[in-house]
Amino acid sequence: MLPIRPDRFLADLHALRSFGAAGVGKGVVRPAYSEPDIAAREWLAGRMRDAGLSVHVDPVGSVFGLAEGRSLLMGSHTDSQPEGGWLDGALGVIAALEVARASVEAGGPPVSVVSFQDEEGRFGVTTGSAVWSGNLSLDKADGLSDRDGLSFAEARARMPGRSEGFVEPGRFSGFLEMHIEQGPVLDREREAIGVVDAIVGIRDMKITLVGEQNHAGTTPMQGRRDAFQALSRFNALIAERFANVVTPSTVWTIGHVTLHPNASSIVPGRVKFSMQWRDGDADRLGRMERIILETAEEVASSGGFDLDFGPMLGLEPVQMDMRLRGALEGAAESEVPGRWRVMPSGALHDATNLSKLMPVAMLFVPSINGISHAFGEDTDEADLVTGLRVLAGAVEALG
Amino acid sequence: MLPIRPDRFLADLHALRSFGAAGVGKGVVRPAYSEPDIAAREWLAGRMRDAGLSVHVDPVGSVFGLAEGRSLLMGSHTDSQPEGGWLDGALGVIAALEVARASVEAGGPPVSVVSFQDEEGRFGVTTGSAVWSGNLSLDKADGLSDRDGLSFAEARARMPGRSEGFVEPGRFSGFLEMHIEQGPVLDREREAIGVVDAIVGIRDMKITLVGEQNHAGTTPMQGRRDAFQALSRFNALIAERFANVVTPSTVWTIGHVTLHPNASSIVPGRVKFSMQWRDGDADRLGRMERIILETAEEVASSGGFDLDFGPMLGLEPVQMDMRLRGALEGAAESEVPGRWRVMPSGALHDATNLSKLMPVAMLFVPSINGISHAFGEDTDEADLVTGLRVLAGAVEALG
Repeated sequence: MLPIRPDRFLADLHALRSFGAAGVGKGVVRPAYSEPDIAAREWLAGRMRDAGLSVHVDPVGSVFGLAEGRSLLMGSHTDSQPEGGWLDGALGVIAALEVARASVEAGGPPVSVVSFQDEEGRFGVTTGSAVWSGNLSLDKADGLSDRDGLSFAEARARMPGRSEGFVEPGRFSGFLEMHIEQGPVLDREREAIGVVDAIVGIRDMKITLVGEQNHAGTTPMQGRRDAFQALSRFNALIAERFANVVTPSTVWTIGHVTLHPNASSIVPGRVKFSMQWRDGDADRLGRMERIILETAEEVASSGGFDLDFGPMLGLEPVQMDMRLRGALEGAAESEVPGRWRVMPSGALHDATNLSKLMPVAMLFVPSINGISHAFGEDTDEADLVTGLRVLAGAVEALG
Repeated sequence: MLPIRPDRFLADLHALRSFGAAGVGKGVVRPAYSEPDIAAREWLAGRMRDAGLSVHVDPVGSVFGLAEGRSLLMGSHTDSQPEGGWLDGALGVIAALEVARASVEAGGPPVSVVSFQDEEGRFGVTTGSAVWSGNLSLDKADGLSDRDGLSFAEARARMPGRSEGFVEPGRFSGFLEMHIEQGPVLDREREAIGVVDAIVGIRDMKITLVGEQNHAGTTPMQGRRDAFQALSRFNALIAERFANVVTPSTVWTIGHVTLHPNASSIVPGRVKFSMQWRDGDADRLGRMERIILETAEEVASSGGFDLDFGPMLGLEPVQMDMRLRGALEGAAESEVPGRWRVMPSGALHDATNLSKLMPVAMLFVPSINGISHAFGEDTDEADLVTGLRVLAGAVEALG
């Protein structure tokens, strides 16, 4: 096995947390291009150089530590949510750094390291890797703004030491990303490792139903075209109809609801709500989409509502590369026999974009109580080290 | 029959509309204590004097036209919603004026007329009649403010010609209020008159369910405590359980919903919503309340939600006086045989407050398409005149 050093790995992980440490538990406030984010990236670049890698900061501020010649690329991101935890992204970057460092020390296979910029989507969605992969043009990205109206172009100009050009993807043989699960499954099942089979695809649309706004006292139930009641009926019907289509990994969410006029004495005449569903299988996403469209049309036409579907956001599921995934599975079975599982990733990651450029695979470690995107995010340090060891084992196996 | 003059009645109704005419259809913008409202009340006082009534403007700006000695009181209000119609309130005042005027001319029974101030609740709820009836103290009313922070005390000081004292309720034998239905029933059934049996009671509360906010991608359906799903389940269950308790006149409404954090990619952890129900029968309101409380508790405990009930607004149903109501029914049957009905009032009216002081009864005429509290509010003029004739017939019968 590569001579990885858990103590050095954990020390670096805690050092990274000191940039933007929130003072609440192990919380971190280090959004993309903030002062702590830029300082953390400069610190990281120094650690990469110390490890014998050559640093390349690309035009959007993603920080690469490059091994010589053709190499495996590993990493994640070091920017955080506005109120985030210490592991989301950071874990994958520091684990990659430790493996690359150990490999240099032992004369092992060449490993490059990356921290992508703005994975958490202050401006777009996984913005740094989206631009590198070509999923988002730099011109288009520059036109994006954060909530305060700051443009991506202005923000990325703040990042010092940027190169003129992007790294050539052809120099990498594949991409491995280690990440916290951000869900409850491994923690609940007391398993140490999840090897990802697919990053789920997402469909997301806003649906609007327009009925009739009325006085809540003088309008009999029978004649109402109450938009909230229509939403509630739609919600119950799709749950019934999904039952024959979904798997235990499938999820769907109505997370946003806006009623109009939203007053207790008025029968609501209009509702706009979000309908989001995720699954690792593109066919299943399509079958769910048909159920959603047909059910909304049925609820609307039977109840006398006007119906509008907003534009649909669609991201296809991404299958992990079988060779890379096999190396992770082999290392997991050797490290924690019977205490790992194959599972989908319900969240997007930089690996989604990188699948356009090269083979990708992902590794999960447990999130305590499934908590993430919050100050309370945490993982037992023993589990972090187990993940590091599996990653190192896979790199060694891949040669 | 008293020598009512439909042309004079309609001319006065249109003259009143000219104060605050919105320029959209027959719309009116004449909120309480606005310049158009004060001007309209001065005009009304003049018409009362012309009709031989003595004018009394009470301390809050309600305008009385008093007949000598003990009399029947009739009227409603001349203030409008911020964006209102030409008939809501105005119809009852001008119909009362015409009947009082005709009665004076013919030496019929003495009839006094009133336009209460702020029925539409710029400051409170049916504020002018609430103060007169003692349901709301003048001190407490003075502390109420409108949306812009203007106090009721400041607003009522704008009304010229106010007396020091309130009218003595004991001089009236009862109160009759004619009003538009503000609902669709009479219009849909092509009936001309509704005689009100009760003004419905209202219960209104805010309910909060707190589950767990989670990532919409990484949290399996099985472990979710999704506040929107809890609301949807509650909504379906109460509809089922109400079925054995309600009548076709019972209404209930979830008109206000606030989800938190209300984002498409986050399982909503909290929902606050309004639950309002109305019925003419106090027992039924109570039975519905028990269903609501028990169902919310069941949904919360079975799904692992925290539950909070906000303070409950409760207004008891008000029964109409049988003698006054009988006079209206007799006049309706003689005027439009078979084309009238007994029905509850789903909306509050000044009569609700006056029931504390004297016997009350109410008469409805149709609202085209049930529209009210909007510029589009209207009623066929033939129906307005039918209502006037029924009112006059009832006054004559009551002697």
